[in-house]
Amino acid sequence: MAKITHVSPLAPEHFPSLPVIGGVRFASAAAGVRYQGRTDVMLAVLDPGTAVAGVFTKSATRAAPVLDCQAKLGGDSAGAAAILVNSGNANAFTGHYGQSSVAEITAAVARVADVPQGRVFTASTGVIGEPLPHERIVAKLDELTGALSDTAIEDAARAIMTTDTFPKGAVAEVEVDGKTVRIAGIGKGSGMIAPDMATMLVYIFTDAGYDQAALQALLSKLTETTFNCITVDSDTSTSDSLLLAATGAAGVDATGDAGFEAALKAVMLDIAQQVVRDGEGATKFVEVRVTGALSDAEAKVHGLAIANSPLVKTAIAGEDPNWGRVVMAIGKSGAAADRDKLSISFGDILVAEKGWVSPDYKEADAAAYMKGQELVIAVDLGLGSGAATIWTCDLTHGYIEINADYRS
Amino acid sequence: MAKITHVSPLAPEHFPSLPVIGGVRFASAAAGVRYQGRTDVMLAVLDPGTAVAGVFTKSATRAAPVLDCQAKLGGDSAGAAAILVNSGNANAFTGHYGQSSVAEITAAVARVADVPQGRVFTASTGVIGEPLPHERIVAKLDELTGALSDTAIEDAARAIMTTDTFPKGAVAEVEVDGKTVRIAGIGKGSGMIAPDMATMLVYIFTDAGYDQAALQALLSKLTETTFNCITVDSDTSTSDSLLLAATGAAGVDATGDAGFEAALKAVMLDIAQQVVRDGEGATKFVEVRVTGALSDAEAKVHGLAIANSPLVKTAIAGEDPNWGRVVMAIGKSGAAADRDKLSISFGDILVAEKGWVSPDYKEADAAAYMKGQELVIAVDLGLGSGAATIWTCDLTHGYIEINADYRS
Repeated sequence: MAKITHVSPLAPEHFPSLPVIGGVRFASAAAGVRYQGRTDVMLAVLDPGTAVAGVFTKSATRAAPVLDCQAKLGGDSAGAAAILVNSGNANAFTGHYGQSSVAEITAAVARVADVPQGRVFTASTGVIGEPLPHERIVAKLDELTGALSDTAIEDAARAIMTTDTFPKGAVAEVEVDGKTVRIAGIGKGSGMIAPDMATMLVYIFTDAGYDQAALQALLSKLTETTFNCITVDSDTSTSDSLLLAATGAAGVDATGDAGFEAALKAVMLDIAQQVVRDGEGATKFVEVRVTGALSDAEAKVHGLAIANSPLVKTAIAGEDPNWGRVVMAIGKSGAAADRDKLSISFGDILVAEKGWVSPDYKEADAAAYMKGQELVIAVDLGLGSGAATIWTCDLTHGYIEINADYRS
Repeated sequence: MAKITHVSPLAPEHFPSLPVIGGVRFASAAAGVRYQGRTDVMLAVLDPGTAVAGVFTKSATRAAPVLDCQAKLGGDSAGAAAILVNSGNANAFTGHYGQSSVAEITAAVARVADVPQGRVFTASTGVIGEPLPHERIVAKLDELTGALSDTAIEDAARAIMTTDTFPKGAVAEVEVDGKTVRIAGIGKGSGMIAPDMATMLVYIFTDAGYDQAALQALLSKLTETTFNCITVDSDTSTSDSLLLAATGAAGVDATGDAGFEAALKAVMLDIAQQVVRDGEGATKFVEVRVTGALSDAEAKVHGLAIANSPLVKTAIAGEDPNWGRVVMAIGKSGAAADRDKLSISFGDILVAEKGWVSPDYKEADAAAYMKGQELVIAVDLGLGSGAATIWTCDLTHGYIEINADYRS
């Protein structure tokens, strides 16, 4: 693991105060999977009747735990459920041994936590291609179940970190039918981040009740405009997983409630943006707003082309208002663009329009703007009403340092 | 311009000795477009009857000179022709002013060099979005035409450099119908390099005769497996241009000759690989060989996913045989892959097969291999007979240094 000696300059000031979510208890432990002197396993146990939904990496080489989770989703939600996550080893590209490790772990969790094995969801994050020492995890299960607590969510967030420089959490409360419903989520991820989920593990819990099939549909829909709109380095992990659990402990069914949907989206976007804020080596948080495209899908193609361009990302790192590279990225994206209808702004500064630099543009203004830590690059294609927003970070020496050394 | 104080460690030992190509004369000059103390304009004048073919960037925001060249290709080849290229300013995203600059330059070249304006091809490379001071170029045309020489091709190669650390040239000779035919090419390019041509300018000359329409078809075909199979940073320039001129001075028509095609491909591949060898910040030259894919096109998708992955490229920079990242890149590419049929080799070292690390694999062997400057990453998908080879370089601090400072 790279020596992470400092916290990202883009990190939130502190971990948020997360409320108790009725029906969920957490524990974490130091199993020594790979790291020494820190926790590396988290267990969450969910009361019977909890609806569980999930979205996963679309990688063709996904890891064994991902395949296992995908097979289990959508099953009967009557029994209790559990989520077990380890850091330090991704159990990815480990052949039949990887599947055996998942089977060993899920069987042991089922036994120790008294949960149906078909409701034990696991995830592993860390090095690819090395056998997971699952016996070290299994050996900690008694300790974990003995320590389960409804206030231990922050420790759980810390146990799943790899190259993350800060633990990630988000919270929302919303009234549904006159009752307060809480949503709390934790996540990890900082490199190998790109749409279709990247090396990111996210667990969101709510005490609302929700129909399980509807919860799955809602999660898939909201993922498109949150986690699938962030990118650090365009690389996609073999292990990304997002699970959403609705325990129903608040005594109200939120199925179809618009306020709940908005609150859930806020939590998802908050965690997604925290992942970008912890992008490996990041020093700038960048929002790329694309409007005027032929469709929302084409706007996303342009936004990702800009956000993933190494030349755009290094210009941002160098605080250079190099809008020519934005033009280049739009040109190469493959989506429709007309050079002479395009306009580009950095923050409120109109940089280019009608195929050329804006007559009012002053390079000094844009250069001053680029010194900020939070930047907006806005592009209007002038072609239609398609829009998308993408969040990314800059590409710095820090990224090279972390990734030329770290075996992930 | 970034201060380039050293030549790429991957550069050839010296510029090749290029033969005189009958029917072509070269000159270069210091017009002060942007750089001081160096040449920045090259002129090539081609005898009447020269067939000219070209391929260009597919960017939707291509520069004015590219649009002008594309409009002129395929025209009558009876008259003389000229190629004028400047470095320091790309004349890209310069609106109507950009088109005026091209018109001014091509009109002046036509007048001074006595060439039809419809046969004057130009290109510009350098900063985007600033007006091209075309009058500085026009002012040098008398000097340029007065200096035309059939041995000045190396100076021409130097005049078109931007962040290049060495001039690029390649040569081949081949017998056609008992006569010797020569092919000589020059090129520039080191960043913003990706398939569909990238920031790359290449000019290839032969004294063979060739039917112009057939020459265009041949050039387009060979570009697919040469220039469109290299990538430095996945970014695509607004200005890339490759022109091929066949003067016929050797007195033999090479149309359809297989030996000529092979020699031309060798020259194109040589220049393409030199561009990668001058990749910004590159310290390793990497050949990615993909076999066993469902089709050649799918093999290329996999090869580019590997070659463009920042995590693969930084691992190579760190001399880390991190085959897990190769698995990741294959998984995210979107082309078909089966984890359990995949095999991966670094050079002759079989690293992974059947969904896991090879039983004979010794990390120490692969780590020693990665210390080399010329690396081969071979992937067999085990699915079909599709194959492709991609050439790329590593991603280092040098890339960040050059691109966080240089306004291109």
